[in-house]
Amino acid sequence: MESRKACDSITIMNELVLPNDTNVFGNLMGGRLMYWMDIAAGITAVKHCNAPCMTASVDNLSFKNPIKLGNVVRIEAKITRAFNTSMEIHLKVWGEDNLHQYRYESNEAYFTFVALDPNNKPRPVPSVIPETEEEKLLFDGALRRRQVRLILGGKMKPDDANELKALFINN
Amino acid sequence: MESRKACDSITIMNELVLPNDTNVFGNLMGGRLMYWMDIAAGITAVKHCNAPCMTASVDNLSFKNPIKLGNVVRIEAKITRAFNTSMEIHLKVWGEDNLHQYRYESNEAYFTFVALDPNNKPRPVPSVIPETEEEKLLFDGALRRRQVRLILGGKMKPDDANELKALFINN
Amino acid sequence: MESRKACDSITIMNELVLPNDTNVFGNLMGGRLMYWMDIAAGITAVKHCNAPCMTASVDNLSFKNPIKLGNVVRIEAKITRAFNTSMEIHLKVWGEDNLHQYRYESNEAYFTFVALDPNNKPRPVPSVIPETEEEKLLFDGALRRRQVRLILGGKMKPDDANELKALFINN
Amino acid sequence: MESRKACDSITIMNELVLPNDTNVFGNLMGGRLMYWMDIAAGITAVKHCNAPCMTASVDNLSFKNPIKLGNVVRIEAKITRAFNTSMEIHLKVWGEDNLHQYRYESNEAYFTFVALDPNNKPRPVPSVIPETEEEKLLFDGALRRRQVRLILGGKMKPDDANELKALFINN
Amino acid sequence: MESRKACDSITIMNELVLPNDTNVFGNLMGGRLMYWMDIAAGITAVKHCNAPCMTASVDNLSFKNPIKLGNVVRIEAKITRAFNTSMEIHLKVWGEDNLHQYRYESNEAYFTFVALDPNNKPRPVPSVIPETEEEKLLFDGALRRRQVRLILGGKMKPDDANELKALFINN
Amino acid sequence: MESRKACDSITIMNELVLPNDTNVFGNLMGGRLMYWMDIAAGITAVKHCNAPCMTASVDNLSFKNPIKLGNVVRIEAKITRAFNTSMEIHLKVWGEDNLHQYRYESNEAYFTFVALDPNNKPRPVPSVIPETEEEKLLFDGALRRRQVRLILGGKMKPDDANELKALFINN
Repeated sequence: MESRKACDSITIMNELVLPNDTNVFGNLMGGRLMYWMDIAAGITAVKHCNAPCMTASVDNLSFKNPIKLGNVVRIEAKITRAFNTSMEIHLKVWGEDNLHQYRYESNEAYFTFVALDPNNKPRPVPSVIPETEEEKLLFDGALRRRQVRLILGGKMKPDDANELKALFINN
Repeated sequence: MESRKACDSITIMNELVLPNDTNVFGNLMGGRLMYWMDIAAGITAVKHCNAPCMTASVDNLSFKNPIKLGNVVRIEAKITRAFNTSMEIHLKVWGEDNLHQYRYESNEAYFTFVALDPNNKPRPVPSVIPETEEEKLLFDGALRRRQVRLILGGKMKPDDANELKALFINN
Repeated sequence: MESRKACDSITIMNELVLPNDTNVFGNLMGGRLMYWMDIAAGITAVKHCNAPCMTASVDNLSFKNPIKLGNVVRIEAKITRAFNTSMEIHLKVWGEDNLHQYRYESNEAYFTFVALDPNNKPRPVPSVIPETEEEKLLFDGALRRRQVRLILGGKMKPDDANELKALFINN
Repeated sequence: MESRKACDSITIMNELVLPNDTNVFGNLMGGRLMYWMDIAAGITAVKHCNAPCMTASVDNLSFKNPIKLGNVVRIEAKITRAFNTSMEIHLKVWGEDNLHQYRYESNEAYFTFVALDPNNKPRPVPSVIPETEEEKLLFDGALRRRQVRLILGGKMKPDDANELKALFINN
Repeated sequence: MESRKACDSITIMNELVLPNDTNVFGNLMGGRLMYWMDIAAGITAVKHCNAPCMTASVDNLSFKNPIKLGNVVRIEAKITRAFNTSMEIHLKVWGEDNLHQYRYESNEAYFTFVALDPNNKPRPVPSVIPETEEEKLLFDGALRRRQVRLILGGKMKPDDANELKALFINN
Repeated sequence: MESRKACDSITIMNELVLPNDTNVFGNLMGGRLMYWMDIAAGITAVKHCNAPCMTASVDNLSFKNPIKLGNVVRIEAKITRAFNTSMEIHLKVWGEDNLHQYRYESNEAYFTFVALDPNNKPRPVPSVIPETEEEKLLFDGALRRRQVRLILGGKMKPDDANELKALFINN
């Protein structure tokens, strides 16, 4: 299975915030944004591995700046690293007020997808070739984020998370 | 401001998985589930503090069992603890195949909401009174989860996260 | 076929009234509410009989208090009685203004569902065991409501509706 | 206030049954049909009285023939009679399988709407002039149906429903 | 294959403009209107040929009067002419402000649909019998509009478009 | 008012074709695609002029390759030229079958938007600076397409359309 460049998986989405997407403040609801992010991340995962994929997990997600009704949501999704049968996708989200030429960061997130074979069993995916400085940083950090995921999901003991432990003991 | 019982905030949601909610596997898409979870958690937050609320963050979320087309999604949301102006909401999600009387766990999650005053500034919320054993465990764990959130959000140094550090050093 | 308790069929739904659900008054449209009620009632019917079900009829439905944009719609559905292949489901609907801790009745309704076998022919369903006082009243009234349904649907002569006739002659 | 012809209020709706409108049988869900019927009836009511209107009640509704995925739903709505501030709207619904040039009756219903003034109080509406034989029959039957509605809604004693009583005693 | 009258294909659609259908001006978005027009035209095409149909092209479409939130969109679609395996459908669109008894033209358009056989290959459709003066004019103009379509689609050289050339040279 | 580069207005949209977007063939419905194209074009127009915009017209649009359920719709929109108060936007649409690494052209279109001032009157927009060869070709062709639009919209006599006449007489 041939490795693939991270940049080949990029997916860009632009969505208009319509009335039904907003809460009582006239801001995009968090759940609606996560819906779009899941679709952008899913397209990215399938682009990388050319197999049907399913959302496995979503990392901690914090909503910084609310996106207003009538503004544009811009989502950029790109794979960071593959782990045998799973892929970590990094997403950046901006709000755009094009009337005032103003773009603001909304949030950043990591979604994990798993590729499935025709029997719905996990199947191996190509590994990722990071090229830019940012891609390499994201690639390296992916191991640590995976340990957080496994510990928080109760699938790894904190003691075995060497990458992560270092963070708490030496920092 | 009077404290409130955790159980007064419970919100139960039942949704039917329709064709447009599903991916190529005929399973509920992760993003659509997060959309419903965000609404259930938001209703719960407003019930507790009687003020308009906004999604602040979502903790690590892992999708265990996919929910099939035509099945029912059952979401139970309840507040665990309040932190001055924010509230942590715990959600449990099941799939229900009522043709076969079969209910299966789908996932579990923590959403954090912040209450806003008329100027859209954070405003204090009542504290939470946990009553059952489970509510007390969730109440106690909330501190540790908050530290994870602050560290992962870059708002706290791992060194200051005493609750969390213990987890990595002594376990 | 084993009888089933009425309470085993309960379905609770909580929905947020979003902009697209409202009419020019900013109130939930009647049709949108009936859409949700039909889904809640359908889930309840399937829970009782564990077979695919189809809406057969809806009884007189009157909308008392409009539910405002941003409020929560709370629907509780429970089976009242089974008639060979059909089931009567009772629904209660409230609006909730959680900012002001105010819950108000919106309407009450009876939906009838029919269970189908694999050839789409009606199939028998378990009978209902009412337990509480309210469940027993609903169980008893179901006969009379069924006669109204049959008469209004032109399937029974008013003369044969003994239960109902009493209502007009003696009350 | 000038009377208006029944035929001036006619509203015709044609909708395509899409995947998300269907249940597990591939048939239009009852709730989705009621949603469309409510909109068609509402347009008809506003056409008659030129004032904002709100759904007040829906009469017994029975679903005869299911409408299949990909078929067309045809709804015809027309006012039958006005009662001071309320209007009774009659709806006929067909399914159309245009591949086989086959149109089948699905159901028939009566919706009642109330007209509101700028303070959201009921306001008088023009009376209705029935012209065709069918319009006159519907106009005459409206009194009886109104009594059923009032009795079923608990707003009239069966004893006072002279029109209706006759139906049970003499038929 | 028997010819069919143009009037047998008429489809009338009435839709209410809801919040999510509108842009920042509170007017129906052009794209949402085209969505409804495509469905109305598609129903018309299937009515004429009793075969599954697919949108092939849409002619120049200009939006004259915006339709306001809460107003009604009225669409009338009718076939003008058939060309072997394709059909030209003419649509007229009005906005209706029923509070003020005011109906205004919104736009007019021509959609072309192609009929498909079970192998998804184009299949012949019945020819059209125009009866009224307007139907005859539309029938005659269809040839010229088809040439515009073919030229603009790069499938015909302007030189071969005799009908159309006359328009530019002699007018 | 400063001129703006064409490339500054680019909007990229990626959408997943879900069940409710498809016709009986399992292909994306033309109307649903036009809905997305209108939103992409609208975002592009606002990016260029930083003013609220409204769809004015859509040029001839022909659907070449249907996009399948589960495939991705990729839309690229860019301004070609501005005419005082209106802007022509060029859109290219592809389908992407990422399971088979296959991208296919679906259609190409020109949408025209008009910018509005606070009184909803047309207001001037910046002119466009084309840079690449393709942008220059599109810029030049815009005049001819505008004449087609004006003639087809009945706002220009064919005789006055010099650019266009040449096409018919000399080609």
